Amino acid sequence: MASSARIAGSALRRARCSHAPIHRVARLHPAIQARWTGTTSATSEPHQPDAQGGVEGKTASSKTVKFTTESYPQLKRNPNFADLSPDHVKYFKELLGSESAVIDGVTADVAEDLEPFNSDWMRKFRGHTKLVLKPGSTEEVSKILKYCNDNSLAVVPQGGNTGLVGGSVPVFDEIVLNMSRMNKIRSFDETSGILVADAGVILEVADNFLQDKGYVFPLDLGAKGSCHIGGNVATNAGGLRLLRYGSLHGTVLGLEAVLPDGTVFDDLSKLRKNNTGYDLKQLLIGGEGTLGVITAVSIMCPQQSPAVNVAYFGLESYEKCQQAFREARGQLSEILSAFELMDGRSQKIMQKAVDKKLPLEGEYPFYCLIETKGSNSDHDSDKLSSFLEHVMGEEIVQDGVLAQDQTQVAELWSCREGITECLGHWGGVYKYDLSIPLNELYQLVDDTRERLTKAGLVGDTEEHPVVDVVGYGHMGDGNLHLNVPTRSFDKRVEKELEPFVYEWVAKRNGSISAEHGLGVTKKPYIGYSRSETMVNLMKQIKDLFDPKGIMNPYKYI
Amino acid sequence: MASSARIAGSALRRARCSHAPIHRVARLHPAIQARWTGTTSATSEPHQPDAQGGVEGKTASSKTVKFTTESYPQLKRNPNFADLSPDHVKYFKELLGSESAVIDGVTADVAEDLEPFNSDWMRKFRGHTKLVLKPGSTEEVSKILKYCNDNSLAVVPQGGNTGLVGGSVPVFDEIVLNMSRMNKIRSFDETSGILVADAGVILEVADNFLQDKGYVFPLDLGAKGSCHIGGNVATNAGGLRLLRYGSLHGTVLGLEAVLPDGTVFDDLSKLRKNNTGYDLKQLLIGGEGTLGVITAVSIMCPQQSPAVNVAYFGLESYEKCQQAFREARGQLSEILSAFELMDGRSQKIMQKAVDKKLPLEGEYPFYCLIETKGSNSDHDSDKLSSFLEHVMGEEIVQDGVLAQDQTQVAELWSCREGITECLGHWGGVYKYDLSIPLNELYQLVDDTRERLTKAGLVGDTEEHPVVDVVGYGHMGDGNLHLNVPTRSFDKRVEKELEPFVYEWVAKRNGSISAEHGLGVTKKPYIGYSRSETMVNLMKQIKDLFDPKGIMNPYKYI
Repeated sequence: MASSARIAGSALRRARCSHAPIHRVARLHPAIQARWTGTTSATSEPHQPDAQGGVEGKTASSKTVKFTTESYPQLKRNPNFADLSPDHVKYFKELLGSESAVIDGVTADVAEDLEPFNSDWMRKFRGHTKLVLKPGSTEEVSKILKYCNDNSLAVVPQGGNTGLVGGSVPVFDEIVLNMSRMNKIRSFDETSGILVADAGVILEVADNFLQDKGYVFPLDLGAKGSCHIGGNVATNAGGLRLLRYGSLHGTVLGLEAVLPDGTVFDDLSKLRKNNTGYDLKQLLIGGEGTLGVITAVSIMCPQQSPAVNVAYFGLESYEKCQQAFREARGQLSEILSAFELMDGRSQKIMQKAVDKKLPLEGEYPFYCLIETKGSNSDHDSDKLSSFLEHVMGEEIVQDGVLAQDQTQVAELWSCREGITECLGHWGGVYKYDLSIPLNELYQLVDDTRERLTKAGLVGDTEEHPVVDVVGYGHMGDGNLHLNVPTRSFDKRVEKELEPFVYEWVAKRNGSISAEHGLGVTKKPYIGYSRSETMVNLMKQIKDLFDPKGIMNPYKYI
Repeated sequence: MASSARIAGSALRRARCSHAPIHRVARLHPAIQARWTGTTSATSEPHQPDAQGGVEGKTASSKTVKFTTESYPQLKRNPNFADLSPDHVKYFKELLGSESAVIDGVTADVAEDLEPFNSDWMRKFRGHTKLVLKPGSTEEVSKILKYCNDNSLAVVPQGGNTGLVGGSVPVFDEIVLNMSRMNKIRSFDETSGILVADAGVILEVADNFLQDKGYVFPLDLGAKGSCHIGGNVATNAGGLRLLRYGSLHGTVLGLEAVLPDGTVFDDLSKLRKNNTGYDLKQLLIGGEGTLGVITAVSIMCPQQSPAVNVAYFGLESYEKCQQAFREARGQLSEILSAFELMDGRSQKIMQKAVDKKLPLEGEYPFYCLIETKGSNSDHDSDKLSSFLEHVMGEEIVQDGVLAQDQTQVAELWSCREGITECLGHWGGVYKYDLSIPLNELYQLVDDTRERLTKAGLVGDTEEHPVVDVVGYGHMGDGNLHLNVPTRSFDKRVEKELEPFVYEWVAKRNGSISAEHGLGVTKKPYIGYSRSETMVNLMKQIKDLFDPKGIMNPYKYI
């Protein structure tokens, strides 16, 4: 990256005078960050399966996927649920009419056709479903659920099946309610930017539709080519635009859904303001399909930002990173769209694992990546260079580079987004997706490293199972990815990590699942992030909406 | 306003070359818009009592306030609630210790001391409470509610008592739980901008605290000097910053509250991301104190914007207003902080009523006011002048002015914020706070005017009760204020207006209460904005949280 604008002290000042090296990167495709993920995922951290269930590594690509019932033997089928019968299947076939809307493994042998609906993309979860239904309308969803509720048949709503916690595939023989046929954009208001679309619309399809009209979807993530907007809302996906556009709790204006008894939850408001009663749709946002099936979404979409700039810099401490973030919020303010943290160890590992040349020549204990998005390239470049001049002048930042074109933008982003892949280089990786108050965010990485080192587990040689302990993440959102790359499977590592990590996070009132949700994986650990009172209230809400418990059972809470 | 920069076609282009007349307005105090409201209120529309309960006018300033039980004779006291006894009072006095924390009208005659807690600031609602409690801690709130629930005593949570729909005062003899003693800022993180504060902190106190640190509260409204942040959250206040910072459903990160049975709802998260279970706090946001009492709020605060610009312009049709809004969203994008609509009639009435000189010389059927807030004055002025050049060049806008200093900023804002006061000039005003899809937003004003005109009610002479039918509002939020100023009370007017207005709004899936909430006033009309299914679900939620119905009874749903 020799030609990118290096911005050490005086060089930057010279650059400012001539207005040349500070180059703008205009009309960058917003999906460019996603390019580096290399696979589909429901989050902006596509390679982050949780450590639960053992170390994840090369074995994950083997051909047969273990049944979830084998990995989680403590899960028992709810005996209140009925077994699927040919009569049930007959009802569904008559209801949905078309042959292609029903994959029937009850009266026929179609195991192979069922497999993609039974397993997740990580090949970590696998269910035993015998029936996949693909409704084409809200009315059909309603009739299906009413029938299932009346007949005690359990159901798993399934969008793009790109989740990371096993939430979108069955555990036992739950019916899969696949939403892919409900894929119409219902309306778009070009003045207000409010989009109404079926739950089964693929995120990228919605985003492309909007981009043609000068807007963007307020959410972006690696799995955009497969995930459904209904699934995004059901899992309250965070993604790459959260720092700028906020969470779905603020941008989703209305939902249409079907409750377990077939009732249509008709709250598809297209209004920014509506203070008439409890905002019940919020329960479905992040409810992971346990209260009902989202069938349509109304969402407020922001205008496109034609100007995109990316800078990468080295800092000498985590305190400096916090200072830099404060300055970025102040000076870049309305155009700041990402503030990412990478520790020096994660960058070094990337260098070692894939022989990557890093953007900066010196070595620093911390690196940050800043992205700005705005409506005016000149203004944004000007703001960014003032900011960089300030943070370098004040020695908050030690050295930095600024991307000059789209290739360099992608190159800088790859230093952040390529980490996950490189960490698997030695074998498996223990991974945690956590929210931690900003002032203590990185402390967990140091504490974990110290703990594993004291236990004699970390080192450069083969007898040490742990290669290193690294941290990186969406610093702007307070979201840390703690990662422990390993050479070999060693039970002692997991024992040192858990419950240590969860307890550490709980003590700081952090979250054990920042953006990935609970699903099967994190269900047992909710108590680390929510009090008994809150969990009990949640259970009462679940019972109120779904007294028979047919919706997405064995998961969530 | 002769010296403000007039921006007609070629003049603007000249101005652009010299970069002189397009002047920036820096470091404007964010409360400046509120200056023009002239009184306290829980919303950005302080003079907007609903039309329900008869026309509001000069009589509102009379000395005695009618009891709510007289204005709403259909409300009957719930016979399940106990009558307050001296024993109850003794318990509360012992619990709260201090004399000043209890105003006891049960064993003493303190009617005058109770009056401010029994009546609202509009002098429209008045209750019969005999007891006001001022807890000093969450624990005290918990003990009070547990006792009330055990003894079937009804309770009204009260913040700054600045609401517009009678939600914060008792109807019968409910105990007032006044939150003013819980007024501490608990913590502020200068890096993340996350504030945690007691519910009874006054909005302005919180905002001033934040401004000293370079941040602002993400909500601003006319009543900021009196209203509590707990009340703001409980009523999901909209206010003046919604277009820019979004709703409280997105910015509130955590809540602490006490449920009717005394249970402490401990969800005071300081995290931007936390996907661990149902987001229950959302039910309390806008729940108007019917599910529990909010005792503390955790909220994400944006950085201050030092640069503020305001422009005012005339347009020839509502279609052009929509076009201008689209262009403003596109070109001003990240710095657009307000887009307000005023029809020509509202501006003319203002001219007539208070002999106000309007900023533009010509007359236009529509006017818009745009405000930008950003981190860099030069950039913002540049963006705004490009925008104005474009919309004038394309003849989207006919004429316009741009404020040159703080006085002119206030002067332009007064053309929007002064309307409400002027409309009362002839007597009373029927007022509606509505959300309507943007493309049809103004049509309601024309349809209502046509209807009243056909009925022979509108005219310039004394025999016509209606002066005019006008519309204005937060166009950027899709929020219309339909106003019907009248000379005299005439039953025919109300008959023509209702249920016509509500039905018109319901047909377009609008909201009959955009930001003011339901309270006592709108309770009977929720069916116009929510389906029976949704209202039934809400009632189930209410029963789940508050089976005895002691929290803020006779209101909401």
